Amino acid sequence: MYIGIDVGGTNLKAGLVDGDGKILAVERVPLDFQGPEAFARTLAELTETVLETRGAEGVEYVGVGLPGAVSGGDILFTTNIPMENVPLETLFRRHLDLPLLLGNDADCAAVGEFTCGAGKGTRDFAVVTLGTGIGAGLILDGKLRGGLASSEAGHMVICRDGLACNCGRHGCWETYASATGLIRLTREAMEAHPESALHTVAAENGGVEGRTAFQAAELGDETALAVCRQYVEYLASGTVSLINLLRPEIVAIGGGVAAAPERLLMEPLRQIAAQECFAQHGGRVTRIQRAELGNDAGIIGAALLGKVI
Amino acid sequence: MYIGIDVGGTNLKAGLVDGDGKILAVERVPLDFQGPEAFARTLAELTETVLETRGAEGVEYVGVGLPGAVSGGDILFTTNIPMENVPLETLFRRHLDLPLLLGNDADCAAVGEFTCGAGKGTRDFAVVTLGTGIGAGLILDGKLRGGLASSEAGHMVICRDGLACNCGRHGCWETYASATGLIRLTREAMEAHPESALHTVAAENGGVEGRTAFQAAELGDETALAVCRQYVEYLASGTVSLINLLRPEIVAIGGGVAAAPERLLMEPLRQIAAQECFAQHGGRVTRIQRAELGNDAGIIGAALLGKVI
Repeated sequence: MYIGIDVGGTNLKAGLVDGDGKILAVERVPLDFQGPEAFARTLAELTETVLETRGAEGVEYVGVGLPGAVSGGDILFTTNIPMENVPLETLFRRHLDLPLLLGNDADCAAVGEFTCGAGKGTRDFAVVTLGTGIGAGLILDGKLRGGLASSEAGHMVICRDGLACNCGRHGCWETYASATGLIRLTREAMEAHPESALHTVAAENGGVEGRTAFQAAELGDETALAVCRQYVEYLASGTVSLINLLRPEIVAIGGGVAAAPERLLMEPLRQIAAQECFAQHGGRVTRIQRAELGNDAGIIGAALLGKVI
Repeated sequence: MYIGIDVGGTNLKAGLVDGDGKILAVERVPLDFQGPEAFARTLAELTETVLETRGAEGVEYVGVGLPGAVSGGDILFTTNIPMENVPLETLFRRHLDLPLLLGNDADCAAVGEFTCGAGKGTRDFAVVTLGTGIGAGLILDGKLRGGLASSEAGHMVICRDGLACNCGRHGCWETYASATGLIRLTREAMEAHPESALHTVAAENGGVEGRTAFQAAELGDETALAVCRQYVEYLASGTVSLINLLRPEIVAIGGGVAAAPERLLMEPLRQIAAQECFAQHGGRVTRIQRAELGNDAGIIGAALLGKVI
């Protein structure tokens, strides 16, 4: 048995997870960041709270997934939380005598999906998570590309000289195909088309979201349909590049945007991939699936990190 | 000891190679393709010719590198040579009782550089070969991404809606950053600039080649300098994307174009990578090196295939 802790922007969620990825107990606390030492103490306390329900017996380690870069038990840097070069395992062990494994959050999602979700049964697998940015996690030959090798596939360029990305490049995939990119496309279309149902849908939901274009497209709105199509083309550009580069068995698409209707997202994405992937000339055909674990992927993946590193 | 055979467009080169990648004997015959069975027989005869000089004792297998896709001992398809779904090892074994290992030529170059060239001592390594197209070979965690997982990194898109690529996509990296792409850039610049030294250099060499722009740039020609700069920017686009996606320790640049003067190719490439790679935000910094083995990479890599698969 394992503890998996998913460090989000506002909450820490910890779960007791068995070897099959089944969550047996969950606890959650708000992230009230007071520096690295307090953070390590919070992780230990949260672990103890989860263990109270069952006891520590048979728990092998605590896995922690967080947004940022890690190396072994050290945090190199985190995004959103101000930590840099923090020896987290060392700090954690002052409170609790359990090994601490660290993973990037997108890598943990990949581990979760690989062990008991969309990637189960494969050896070469990638997860692409569509959120504020694009997170990517790669499992190659059954092992996570984690730590220093953790993928930043969202920062492949798809449009040289395109829009500026936070990373400093221009034209990165995540600038176009993240939820943020989708919201930008939606706003641009709304400005150009005051008659579009996008306005009504956005007003009903209190603002423009990643799902706005898909919801308006479901109503038959032409402008929204065009936004969805353009978005899928951007998503496909990077997905096909990733597939051509790595030839995985399955690429799973996760994150909030992946909840969009099948016929507006996954179906056209698969159609473009079938036309554009190098596999049309021979070799392995990569399947594109929806991620399966939803919000639990983080906890499960963090808990099962030790199985793939 | 191993036999490595490099199947080129016009010749077959076979070498007896020791465990350190040292070539002890080489033989070469023209590629006179008369169908898969004759091809397998030629490979066996060539092997025997090499072995005559030393005897077969201690030779573990024959490794063959060829342009195309392979799976185990089978050829899925080859480019330039008309073979599809050929059980090459089976055909070969009718003539010679030695195991046959198959690899894509770019993958063999990666194996050669990894075992005794630019990638020696690493675990995560990529070779990018700039020729008619862009070949890429990946060694991740010390193992070749070969067979069905063989990379087609040249078919990452860097310019959505860009120039048509032979693969069917638009804007693929190899369309811009292969030797073919460089020659196209050079021709375009010559048309726009009749005063450029590119014309003199091309005339002296009997036509426009990959090195034409670099040679004219060495003479101080502004147009040629601009062509070289534009080419390096294209090369950098895909190189940085590959680095961000895989975070290897070293990327080696090989192929004819890599012979260009350091200050016109490798130096600006490294400068752009330093500015654009995600590593500037933390984590592993990938080094970009020139490939070291030249034309021998194919023989050595084919011979040492068994070490990394």
